[in-house]
Amino acid sequence: MMKLSRLLQSRNLLSGKLLYGKSGDVKDASCLHAFTVHAGISTSRENSAAKGYAAQRIFASYSVFKGKAALSVTPVLPTFTKLDSGSVVVDRRGVMMFKFLPAIGERKYDNEKRQMIALSVTEVGSLISLGPQDSCEMFHDPSMKSSNAGQVRKSLSIKPHADGSGYLISLSVVNNILKTKEYFTVPVTTAEFSVMKTACSFALPHILGWGRLTNQLPRGTEGQPSKVDSQLLDLEWDK
Amino acid sequence: MMKLSRLLQSRNLLSGKLLYGKSGDVKDASCLHAFTVHAGISTSRENSAAKGYAAQRIFASYSVFKGKAALSVTPVLPTFTKLDSGSVVVDRRGVMMFKFLPAIGERKYDNEKRQMIALSVTEVGSLISLGPQDSCEMFHDPSMKSSNAGQVRKSLSIKPHADGSGYLISLSVVNNILKTKEYFTVPVTTAEFSVMKTACSFALPHILGWGRLTNQLPRGTEGQPSKVDSQLLDLEWDK
Amino acid sequence: MMKLSRLLQSRNLLSGKLLYGKSGDVKDASCLHAFTVHAGISTSRENSAAKGYAAQRIFASYSVFKGKAALSVTPVLPTFTKLDSGSVVVDRRGVMMFKFLPAIGERKYDNEKRQMIALSVTEVGSLISLGPQDSCEMFHDPSMKSSNAGQVRKSLSIKPHADGSGYLISLSVVNNILKTKEYFTVPVTTAEFSVMKTACSFALPHILGWGRLTNQLPRGTEGQPSKVDSQLLDLEWDK
Amino acid sequence: MMKLSRLLQSRNLLSGKLLYGKSGDVKDASCLHAFTVHAGISTSRENSAAKGYAAQRIFASYSVFKGKAALSVTPVLPTFTKLDSGSVVVDRRGVMMFKFLPAIGERKYDNEKRQMIALSVTEVGSLISLGPQDSCEMFHDPSMKSSNAGQVRKSLSIKPHADGSGYLISLSVVNNILKTKEYFTVPVTTAEFSVMKTACSFALPHILGWGRLTNQLPRGTEGQPSKVDSQLLDLEWDK
Repeated sequence: MMKLSRLLQSRNLLSGKLLYGKSGDVKDASCLHAFTVHAGISTSRENSAAKGYAAQRIFASYSVFKGKAALSVTPVLPTFTKLDSGSVVVDRRGVMMFKFLPAIGERKYDNEKRQMIALSVTEVGSLISLGPQDSCEMFHDPSMKSSNAGQVRKSLSIKPHADGSGYLISLSVVNNILKTKEYFTVPVTTAEFSVMKTACSFALPHILGWGRLTNQLPRGTEGQPSKVDSQLLDLEWDK
Repeated sequence: MMKLSRLLQSRNLLSGKLLYGKSGDVKDASCLHAFTVHAGISTSRENSAAKGYAAQRIFASYSVFKGKAALSVTPVLPTFTKLDSGSVVVDRRGVMMFKFLPAIGERKYDNEKRQMIALSVTEVGSLISLGPQDSCEMFHDPSMKSSNAGQVRKSLSIKPHADGSGYLISLSVVNNILKTKEYFTVPVTTAEFSVMKTACSFALPHILGWGRLTNQLPRGTEGQPSKVDSQLLDLEWDK
Repeated sequence: MMKLSRLLQSRNLLSGKLLYGKSGDVKDASCLHAFTVHAGISTSRENSAAKGYAAQRIFASYSVFKGKAALSVTPVLPTFTKLDSGSVVVDRRGVMMFKFLPAIGERKYDNEKRQMIALSVTEVGSLISLGPQDSCEMFHDPSMKSSNAGQVRKSLSIKPHADGSGYLISLSVVNNILKTKEYFTVPVTTAEFSVMKTACSFALPHILGWGRLTNQLPRGTEGQPSKVDSQLLDLEWDK
Repeated sequence: MMKLSRLLQSRNLLSGKLLYGKSGDVKDASCLHAFTVHAGISTSRENSAAKGYAAQRIFASYSVFKGKAALSVTPVLPTFTKLDSGSVVVDRRGVMMFKFLPAIGERKYDNEKRQMIALSVTEVGSLISLGPQDSCEMFHDPSMKSSNAGQVRKSLSIKPHADGSGYLISLSVVNNILKTKEYFTVPVTTAEFSVMKTACSFALPHILGWGRLTNQLPRGTEGQPSKVDSQLLDLEWDK
C-alpha cells in the first residue's frame, strides 16, 4: 500500500496566477453544476466584454451534491501568448479547479461562501494515481512570495473510506487576516471518484497545453519541402 | 473484492431530460448497429427539420447481438445554451444511452419493442470502474418528481459470469400504469465489455461537456494582452 | 489467470467490407512504416482520383520489423453516408488493420507477399484487455456468406512469451483455392505491445465512429431555443 | 516483478532525424517551462521564417525542477509530406523529447548546457508500461550509421526509488570527440511520474500520426456514393 508523500505547493509566481472570473452574479446556488468558471479565456470579465470575447466563456463541470457541501470540478486551460517572434508560448498554466459550496438547505448551496483550490498538473497526477487505499493532502498558500505569506492556508485532503466504498474529500481554509476558519467535507462514492479520475486524466494533457499541440493541423503538407536541412534540426545528434 | 453499492438515481429535472429523437421510421430492426439515436443535437426532429439542422444527426453506436436481445450503446452529448451575457452553459447533461431490443428471429430484433435507459456520468463511472468480479445495479424512475412518480421503474444490472468470462447485462422495466413488465438479458464477453469500458471512458469527459472546453482554440493568442490584471483573476488568493 | 475464449468472426456483410486501397505501386518494401493503407476514405483509388479526393489519403502506422517478418498496424476509420433525411449513418465499420510482410533480407520485406487481417472493434477489445499471461486467437473467413465460404481461413494469434517479456503475434493464411499456406510470426516486446495497446485503445472509439460524435461542434449555441419540447425528447420517460 | 530488457536504438535514418529548433536565444534558463521545442513544424527556424510559418511554433512542456537539474518533457509531432499522387505520408516520425538542464543556483538552470534525448514511440511504450518497481534504460548513438558512429553515447535511465516513492530519471552523455562526459539526475515523485505517464499515453498516438487520421473529417458524407466497388476494396478477402 503506497502512501503519497505530502505535497507542498511550490509554484512560482509566473505559473501561480489563476485564470478565474468571479461569478458573483449567480444568485441561485443550486446552479453550481452549470455555472462555474471561465475556461480558456485569458482576460478577466471586464476585459473580455470590452474585447468582444464574452461569447467564448464556457461553463461545464462535474459536481457532486452532498449533505454538508457540494463539490464542483472544472478544468481551466492554460493561456498562450504570441511572442514578437511569432512563437506561441504558455502564459498561464492550466489548473484543475475544485470549488466547494456549503449546504444551506436541502439541495441548496451558498455560492457566496464558496471556497476554491486550484490543483496544479502535478497535484492532478497525485489524484489520478491514488489507489483504493491511498490518501493525499495538498497545501496551498495563496499569498506565497507576498508580504502576506503564511497568513492564509488552504489544504485539500483526499482520504479513503474505511470500508473501501469511496473517499472523503475535504478542504480547510484558515485565514489569519480575517480570523476565519472554514471546513468543507464531501464524501464521494467509488463511482464518483472514478468519474473524477477519468475526467482529470482526460484533462491533464490539456491543462499542460499539449492539446494545443495535437489539435493543430500538421504543417508538413502545405508546401514545405520534404527534404529539410537536417543539420539545422538534428540538435540531439550534434551536441 | 469490491462491491459497488446500489445507486439510486438522483438526477434533478434540469439534467434528467434526455436528448433523444424517436427513430420509429427505422423498420428493419437488424439495422440497429447503424440507426440509433440523435446525438449532439439540441432540438427535436421537428425543430431541427425546420431549422435546417437535420444534416447534423449522426448515428454511431456499439452494438452486440445475442440470442434473446441486442444491446446498443451510444453517447449522447450535452447541449449548450448561450446566455444573454454571451456565456455558454450546459443546458442538458450528456448521458450514455443503453438500448435493448428483443430478438424475434435469427439476428432479427424488434425495434418497436425497444427499451432504453440513459446512464448519467456517475453511473458511467460505476460501469468503467467495475473490476472482474464486481457487479452494479442502477435504478431509474422516469417519472420522478411528477405525479406518476413510482409508477414506472427501470433497473439496469451488470453482473459477472461465474467463470469470469464476461458479464450479464440486463434491463428490467416495470410499468404499473400499462401493467407491463419487460426483461432483457444480453450476455457480453470480456472483449465486448472491454470495448464498452474503453469507449465509455473515452466518452465520459465529452458527456460532461469537457470536450467542448478542450476542443476550442485557446484565445490567448488572438490579440489579448499577455499581462492581465492579476488582481481580478486571483480569486483563490484573495478570498 | 484469464484465458479469452476463441472468437469466431461473425460480422455481417454490411460491416465486413473493408476500406482498403491496394498500394501495389510501393516497390520498396522497407517503406512499410510509411506506406500502409487508405484511412478515412470511402472510395477506392479510382473513384477518389476522379473526385479530387486524392489529397485525403493519409498513411500512418505503427510498425515493428523483426527477423522473419514485419508487422504494421493501422486504424481504418468508418465511413459515413448521408441519408436522404439528412441523417449521417455509419456505412462501413472501422477496423484495425494488421499487415504482415515476410522478410527477404536484412530489414528488407516483400510488400508483394503481404497478408492482412482486419480486426473488428470487439477483436480490438480482446487485444487491449489481454493481461500479461493471456492469449487470444481470432479466426476470419474472408469468403463468409459467399460460395467460397470456408475456402480461405485466416487466424491471428497473440501468445505471451514464457518469460513474460512480450508476445508472439502470428498470422496463418490457408487458401484452399490457390493451394497456398502462409505463416508469419513477429515477436513483440512488452514495450512494443504497450504501444499497440495504447494506440489501439486510442483508436477504438474512433473506429466505432464516436470520434465523429465528439469532434463536431455542439449545436446548442447557434440559435436554437434553449427550451425544447421535453415531451418529444424524453423517450426514456414516456415508454 | 517484470524487468524490461534493455532497448538498443534501431531507428533508421529516415525516421531518426529530429524535428528540433535551437532555442539558443532563450537566455533565462528559468524559462524552461515555457520555452522548449518546435512541435509540428517541418522546417527549421530559418526556413519557417522565410515561409511565414513562424506563427505556428508552439511551446508547451511538462517540467520538473529539482536540486541538481531540471527535466522538461515535450511531444514532437511527426511531419507529413504530400506525394505527387496526392497521398499524405509520415515524413519524420514523432518523438518525445526529454531535455535536461543543470542547476546553477536556486531554481536557476543553464539552458546553454542542456542535453536532450528523443524517445521513439516504442521507448515511450516502455516508459508508460513501467510498473512501480520496474526500471528501464535506453541507449542512443546520435551518430549511428555515420563515420562518427560510437563516438557519442547517450543513455536515459529510469529507476524506482527503493521506498517506492517515485523514480530517479538520469541522462548520461559521453562524447569521445569532445572528451566530455555529462550526467544529469532528476528524482521524480509518484505524482510527477503519473503526470509523465498520463501525458505520454495521451501523446503516443499523436506522435505515431494517428491523431491526423482521427482529427480529419470523415469524407463519406460529402457526396461520394455510398455504394463503392467492394471488389476494389476488399483486399483482405481477395488475397
